[in-house]
Amino acid sequence: MAAASPVSFDDVRAAAARLRGIAHRTPVLTSRTLNSAVGAEVFIKCENFQRVGAFKFRGAYNAAAQLSPEQLAKGIAAYSSGNHAQATALAARELGTSAVILMPEDAPRSKLAATAGYGAEVVTYDRYAQDRTALGEALAEDRGLALIPPYDHPHVIAGQGTAALELLEDTGALDALLVPVGGGGLIAGSATAAKALHPGIRVIGVEPEAGDDTRLSLASGARVTIPVPRTIADGQALATPGEITFPINQRLVDAVSVVSDEEIVHAMRFAFERLKIVLEPSGASALAALMAGRVDNPPRRIGVIASGGNIDTERFAGLIAR
Amino acid sequence: MAAASPVSFDDVRAAAARLRGIAHRTPVLTSRTLNSAVGAEVFIKCENFQRVGAFKFRGAYNAAAQLSPEQLAKGIAAYSSGNHAQATALAARELGTSAVILMPEDAPRSKLAATAGYGAEVVTYDRYAQDRTALGEALAEDRGLALIPPYDHPHVIAGQGTAALELLEDTGALDALLVPVGGGGLIAGSATAAKALHPGIRVIGVEPEAGDDTRLSLASGARVTIPVPRTIADGQALATPGEITFPINQRLVDAVSVVSDEEIVHAMRFAFERLKIVLEPSGASALAALMAGRVDNPPRRIGVIASGGNIDTERFAGLIAR
Repeated sequence: MAAASPVSFDDVRAAAARLRGIAHRTPVLTSRTLNSAVGAEVFIKCENFQRVGAFKFRGAYNAAAQLSPEQLAKGIAAYSSGNHAQATALAARELGTSAVILMPEDAPRSKLAATAGYGAEVVTYDRYAQDRTALGEALAEDRGLALIPPYDHPHVIAGQGTAALELLEDTGALDALLVPVGGGGLIAGSATAAKALHPGIRVIGVEPEAGDDTRLSLASGARVTIPVPRTIADGQALATPGEITFPINQRLVDAVSVVSDEEIVHAMRFAFERLKIVLEPSGASALAALMAGRVDNPPRRIGVIASGGNIDTERFAGLIAR
Repeated sequence: MAAASPVSFDDVRAAAARLRGIAHRTPVLTSRTLNSAVGAEVFIKCENFQRVGAFKFRGAYNAAAQLSPEQLAKGIAAYSSGNHAQATALAARELGTSAVILMPEDAPRSKLAATAGYGAEVVTYDRYAQDRTALGEALAEDRGLALIPPYDHPHVIAGQGTAALELLEDTGALDALLVPVGGGGLIAGSATAAKALHPGIRVIGVEPEAGDDTRLSLASGARVTIPVPRTIADGQALATPGEITFPINQRLVDAVSVVSDEEIVHAMRFAFERLKIVLEPSGASALAALMAGRVDNPPRRIGVIASGGNIDTERFAGLIAR
């Protein structure tokens, strides 16, 4: 008998209630140009417009909000070089507590500043010499902080699932849902919501070609570890699927497509020039898969999660010029 | 006794009815970061998300839709190097007629292609050797086409006013409304709607420093002609206010602020990095005026029209790198 999933549709609905009025209900964008280009009706869930510029706030807040008052009084912590850092910092501020965020000392200045700007204490480390997991756990234990993991936690996963829940509430039934895959939290939560609402929906993950650990793991039936991927999609540059996310995705994800960095840049350019929105590389990967023909037999009505838009103008200009 | 205005609030409301289901009702964006930065509650009307990427579609369609069936059967025409070209081309297609658009032969390839992509016939001319007004009028007369002017027509002005009408419907009363000024059509229509709904609202125009023909004209009480302005805000690089727009703006516009190209780039960068939206220079000028402190005594609740987002990635990168 299969074990019960650590994340149920009720958990996603409870997360949605918790996030109401705190996270943004992000818009769903459509484009005639895009529909003609791909021969389908496409609905883009714009998580680049989410607070902190990415879906990560949903999961971080949903997890932090379920801590005990005693734990919240002590504070929370996270380790992240990316959007989860800002997400946890903002979740702490919204809940009236403090956050300590462990970030690599060579993280983009803008991300360090943004995280500190939400009122968090930023602790830096040397990512080439120090192990962030050990450091993060030591830091949390020393100070009595609750560590909010970036994806491998049922409350984080349930929070991320509210993105798909909102999308499907707005669009009604879809034939497929394309979701970027990093650690697998967004797709695990999204698939939980999507399959509960519409059991026939195809949930398709999208990974960068160089970082297809989830695709390989699904194919081999167990979590595979690959060399740390080199890809512009920094939010998806993970070496192995999550312990908690992977079994969920094994059960609920129908396929994983991969995209090249060039295909991602093409989608970022299209988003900029035609949709007038800013997507970071990871945030554009699902759109890229659809536009590059990486989705087999694309069905008629397709949801695409555009997961984030945190990229500064200089990096954007550099990627476009490649 | 003052002559009746060529554009009434009823005209704007009639335009809104005509545009329903055809133009987008564009979103109104808010940002906590922006509000803290300027110390006000700011509501950005995102006309960069309008069809063709700018407010221009509102006016072009509203004018074309009021032509007689006989005239529509013959076709329409426009001369424009910018967003009005695409707007007229799309209006023609929506109305089932043809369009001939006169564009400078050195217009950006992307704009020539986009205009042709909407099904228009594009006729190019040498802007250094030929007079576009004379050419356009000759072309329209030869072929029996109705010329849709970019701003100096009551139907165009009424159409543009629907941007402010929608904004105020969404926000309720505002203390001030900031509107980019080129030929003056957008602000004339917007002021007509805004002052009818909320007589106390301050309507503030924004021009590039180098192209302050409307500011000078309002100060001197008559239309002034300046040298063709050199500014990155190409949509606002006009030498003199419109014949029809100017008297309306004399009556309804409370002040005109000016912004530098650097202030515009700063606002474009802020829009990209924090709001995750793409604005072209003209489209960012009103936001720039607010952010640069160019608006005297900014009141509590301010509407800002972000008028367009048509800029390709290469030009954007070039402006950001300056």
